[in-house]
Amino acid sequence: MQRITITPCQIHEDRIAFTAEQHHYLTRVIRLRPGGQFQAIDGNGRCYLAEISSELSPRTAVGTAQIVQIIATSVGGANRELPQPMVLICALPKGNNFDELVRACTELGVTTILPAISDRTLLNPSPQKLQRWRKIAQEAAEQSERLVIPIIEEPQALKTIFDGLTDLAHKYLCEARGEYPHLLTSLQSTQLIDLPIIIAIGPEGGWTDGEIQLAIEHGFQLVSLGSRILRTITAPIVALSIVTAAIEQGHSYR
Amino acid sequence: MQRITITPCQIHEDRIAFTAEQHHYLTRVIRLRPGGQFQAIDGNGRCYLAEISSELSPRTAVGTAQIVQIIATSVGGANRELPQPMVLICALPKGNNFDELVRACTELGVTTILPAISDRTLLNPSPQKLQRWRKIAQEAAEQSERLVIPIIEEPQALKTIFDGLTDLAHKYLCEARGEYPHLLTSLQSTQLIDLPIIIAIGPEGGWTDGEIQLAIEHGFQLVSLGSRILRTITAPIVALSIVTAAIEQGHSYR
Repeated sequence: MQRITITPCQIHEDRIAFTAEQHHYLTRVIRLRPGGQFQAIDGNGRCYLAEISSELSPRTAVGTAQIVQIIATSVGGANRELPQPMVLICALPKGNNFDELVRACTELGVTTILPAISDRTLLNPSPQKLQRWRKIAQEAAEQSERLVIPIIEEPQALKTIFDGLTDLAHKYLCEARGEYPHLLTSLQSTQLIDLPIIIAIGPEGGWTDGEIQLAIEHGFQLVSLGSRILRTITAPIVALSIVTAAIEQGHSYR
Repeated sequence: MQRITITPCQIHEDRIAFTAEQHHYLTRVIRLRPGGQFQAIDGNGRCYLAEISSELSPRTAVGTAQIVQIIATSVGGANRELPQPMVLICALPKGNNFDELVRACTELGVTTILPAISDRTLLNPSPQKLQRWRKIAQEAAEQSERLVIPIIEEPQALKTIFDGLTDLAHKYLCEARGEYPHLLTSLQSTQLIDLPIIIAIGPEGGWTDGEIQLAIEHGFQLVSLGSRILRTITAPIVALSIVTAAIEQGHSYR
């Protein structure tokens, strides 16, 4: 069934009011007729089964849909979300690689991405880039049948990001140099219940000593992702793969 | 220090004979002079420190280098290789995505990639594609400072691949549908010493029932990568991240 993404403020009682873009999409592109059903996700973990209202036609400017049913935090019976928030702090890599990183991390269940301007980050991306990443996150969430669309914040200085973090979280800074325990070992020696898991991944060239010190002061544990050299676009995927596996390993899946 | 990749047959006693391409690269592109040093890896786990011979000049057609030292299975003191082979059987995805998959899996330490033609694989790639993947694997191995260049076999039917596998291996077939234990759980409940770890990842749409049956007959365990829907190009990266973490988690890294 077709799925669209809405914002919670589009819901008025038991109806969904479309934007002009959604109206065009539903009536012109996929040509749903009155009575036709679709799913609407609000990005906060709710999915609605909705039905096109009878007054909707391509000629009217804006239409609405009747909410038939709320399918909370599940699609087709499967809950794709992790039991706790998974936050990625990622130094911006060179080039356009952040697109693919946003896509893969969304598939992996990330809930928030905080792009960081680190000592070794050269570029400060344009506002258009941020819009693009948010669109990619939305598309990837839809394709992965997730109900939570990851929040992608504006790029900020690492210290600003660290200062804004809650103390009630498990915080891991991944660092290739130095003798640190493996991320998996650290995760498995911790009770991971409920609290957000925050992972920080450095830029090409790694974190500076000052940044590592700052992370320690903000309660981060230093961890390794293994003995290989990973690109900045591969490292977050590896780290989030390990986090999700550590959280979910006790389960069997249908 | 600059690194090039050679084949073992380019070594004659204590000298390396260049190909015309390497000769051009060393003398014209990076402009090494006689006495200049570089590293040469043979793709079998050996790295040589070598020195440009005095007779080498851009005008001579072919040159040689003197081997100064053999740096066996280590670069800068760090061993990047896993203690056992890690083999990926991967159904060919649509489009050109296999390039990025080869690159990321090489970074992650894969030793052999076996592209599989499965029941739901539509395309059979051209021989040019295979050459391209091998070149990407070589480049990615150099960038990751690996000494082993992954072997990439020609695409073959899944049954042919399964028939060619050794019995002495840990074999895991990743499958999104069905209630299977998590790959990490399966790995951690097994003594993983020495034997190759073989991971099979299906195409878009998953394995067919016949393929799953075939895998079971060939000694594969069915495992899950978690509750999210992963693309065919993300799933191998996730699986290999979990394998390397399970192998290496007991270690600390310098």
